[in-house]
Amino acid sequence: MRAHPTAIVSPKAKIHPSVEIGPFSIIHGNVEIGEGTSVGSNCELGVATRLGDGSALRIGQGSTIRSHSVFYESSSFGDGLVTGHRVTVRELTQAGRGFQIGTLSDIQGHCTVGDFVRLHSNVHIGQKSVVEDYVWIFPYVVLTNDPHPPSEVLLGARIKSFAVIATMTTVLPGVTVGEGALVGACSAVTKDVADHRIAVGNPAVDRGDANRVRLKDGTDRAAYPWKSHFHRGYPEAVVAEWMASLPKS
Amino acid sequence: MRAHPTAIVSPKAKIHPSVEIGPFSIIHGNVEIGEGTSVGSNCELGVATRLGDGSALRIGQGSTIRSHSVFYESSSFGDGLVTGHRVTVRELTQAGRGFQIGTLSDIQGHCTVGDFVRLHSNVHIGQKSVVEDYVWIFPYVVLTNDPHPPSEVLLGARIKSFAVIATMTTVLPGVTVGEGALVGACSAVTKDVADHRIAVGNPAVDRGDANRVRLKDGTDRAAYPWKSHFHRGYPEAVVAEWMASLPKS
Amino acid sequence: MRAHPTAIVSPKAKIHPSVEIGPFSIIHGNVEIGEGTSVGSNCELGVATRLGDGSALRIGQGSTIRSHSVFYESSSFGDGLVTGHRVTVRELTQAGRGFQIGTLSDIQGHCTVGDFVRLHSNVHIGQKSVVEDYVWIFPYVVLTNDPHPPSEVLLGARIKSFAVIATMTTVLPGVTVGEGALVGACSAVTKDVADHRIAVGNPAVDRGDANRVRLKDGTDRAAYPWKSHFHRGYPEAVVAEWMASLPKS
Repeated sequence: MRAHPTAIVSPKAKIHPSVEIGPFSIIHGNVEIGEGTSVGSNCELGVATRLGDGSALRIGQGSTIRSHSVFYESSSFGDGLVTGHRVTVRELTQAGRGFQIGTLSDIQGHCTVGDFVRLHSNVHIGQKSVVEDYVWIFPYVVLTNDPHPPSEVLLGARIKSFAVIATMTTVLPGVTVGEGALVGACSAVTKDVADHRIAVGNPAVDRGDANRVRLKDGTDRAAYPWKSHFHRGYPEAVVAEWMASLPKS
Repeated sequence: MRAHPTAIVSPKAKIHPSVEIGPFSIIHGNVEIGEGTSVGSNCELGVATRLGDGSALRIGQGSTIRSHSVFYESSSFGDGLVTGHRVTVRELTQAGRGFQIGTLSDIQGHCTVGDFVRLHSNVHIGQKSVVEDYVWIFPYVVLTNDPHPPSEVLLGARIKSFAVIATMTTVLPGVTVGEGALVGACSAVTKDVADHRIAVGNPAVDRGDANRVRLKDGTDRAAYPWKSHFHRGYPEAVVAEWMASLPKS
Repeated sequence: MRAHPTAIVSPKAKIHPSVEIGPFSIIHGNVEIGEGTSVGSNCELGVATRLGDGSALRIGQGSTIRSHSVFYESSSFGDGLVTGHRVTVRELTQAGRGFQIGTLSDIQGHCTVGDFVRLHSNVHIGQKSVVEDYVWIFPYVVLTNDPHPPSEVLLGARIKSFAVIATMTTVLPGVTVGEGALVGACSAVTKDVADHRIAVGNPAVDRGDANRVRLKDGTDRAAYPWKSHFHRGYPEAVVAEWMASLPKS
């Protein structure tokens, strides 16, 4: 392990020898970190909590955790996790591989995240949320869970594969956003959005099929499904699978 | 005092011997911390400012301040303060007991907060705000104060006892939200909300009595006033007083 | 240089001897800091990135960078930069003098900022944004850039001189907000706003000339252009120029 001399690393933590740990960071004992991962400065990983299940914080191989981030114990992340700065992730978050979490994002725990999910800056994921594979969530989006706050009822939102939620949108408790659906900016999503539809507004209303949006790159191709044209950062095998799934045009 | 060896604690600070202070935290001189309080890592307490009144930052007994939080001098908090991570609290904030401040919340100071007020993550409290007892404020809510920014006029919002403000709502300058009122998610509250009413929308409009919302817990009871059914985390004596105040049904 | 003993300062950084650097802060090598600047605790300045142009992070004279802030290399700030806490600024941000960045604000880089621009707390500036001189942007405002996310098309917003964008507003990709215009709180700005007009709503619509808003300070003067009455914190020469530019009344 290549820890900065100022870092405080518990001898109980299971850390691959190749892992780098930055200055003023703290790694508690109930933590496992995979090969080739880099942890920035001023982070705290494996914060203890009575609200977990006793399991370790597990960070997969080849991950990058940027400075000032805080992760609790009892959460698990596949290989290739990438975070911005000042990320907070509470206990009982189960995430797949290739998860990207933007600066200031706040994951409240007790939630499930698929593969290659991308949260931009300042996204808030409430407890009991389910976010499926390849979802994109943009800045200042909140997934809520309490239909009549404060209460003991938690109805998490479900965001299905390839869905996109644009900036400053709130998803109300128990709502499902369909596969490949697009929710426009500044929306309040009060009821389910069907697969491959656009919803926008406060409250959000259906505005047609997502494939009617055209790319402003000079080609006038359909902008959705976005997997037809946006491939940056995904493994080749994933993209090949996506392309094979598209209808022949 | 049980300060981590890396913590920097001014000998002028008045800190009860039982207080714990985490790694890489800084406690300035004009600070008083009560018995049994715990301060996490990477915090800075008692930041000096010319904008205060010279008084100390006072943190009551049995409080928990989580990592990366920043508090200025000249503010006061009753017993049982609990914060999330990365909280910022400026000078001249006067808060009662049992105050909870969620991760990333930003209190601009020059404001008054009652007893057992709960701010969820990423709440912004503008200067001159008044937040009364037992109020709940949910993520990404902003209390504003300048009716025609930028200007020297500050008209704080007033949130009365037991009121609830749901996610992503902005309260415009000088607005009062009534006792026990419910402001729905994604609202812009441009005028006063009467006691025990629901307001929602941009701009927010009256949508009837709060007690018409039913609990989705299978009981179909009224969800408001929430003090009738939600008691987690409040002292028994407080709850007993609430229950005695409810009309017999 | 007056660096706290716990600060980690690269000998390659070019730092004026008068600069103060707080505890637990990190200054990387590709950094230049001007005379009289103060850097708070727990900051990280000059973070390396492949996405820059190799140039240094340059911080002008007389600047104040508050705690827990993170700046990347390849950005430049004129004299008199002032930040709140936990600010994040990525590479290729070019800003003029007197820039103020509020607590939690997140500047994504690849953007241009004029002189005396003021961002309040928790403002998000997307890549390719252009913010001209004397602009005010209030809490939870987001400048976006992707017209059909995710894509490789970036259309930054342009905010012209003296414009004001109120709390919780989103500016959609490619939109221009005119000189001296006022965008009301909680708006979604989907099309250009003309100079000196008010726009408000979701979507924002024109509501007349900005000068019809009256100051609530007892004088009933026009609140806009704000340069006619709000001068706090600007150099005398700047204010004199503003006053000379106003029509005689």
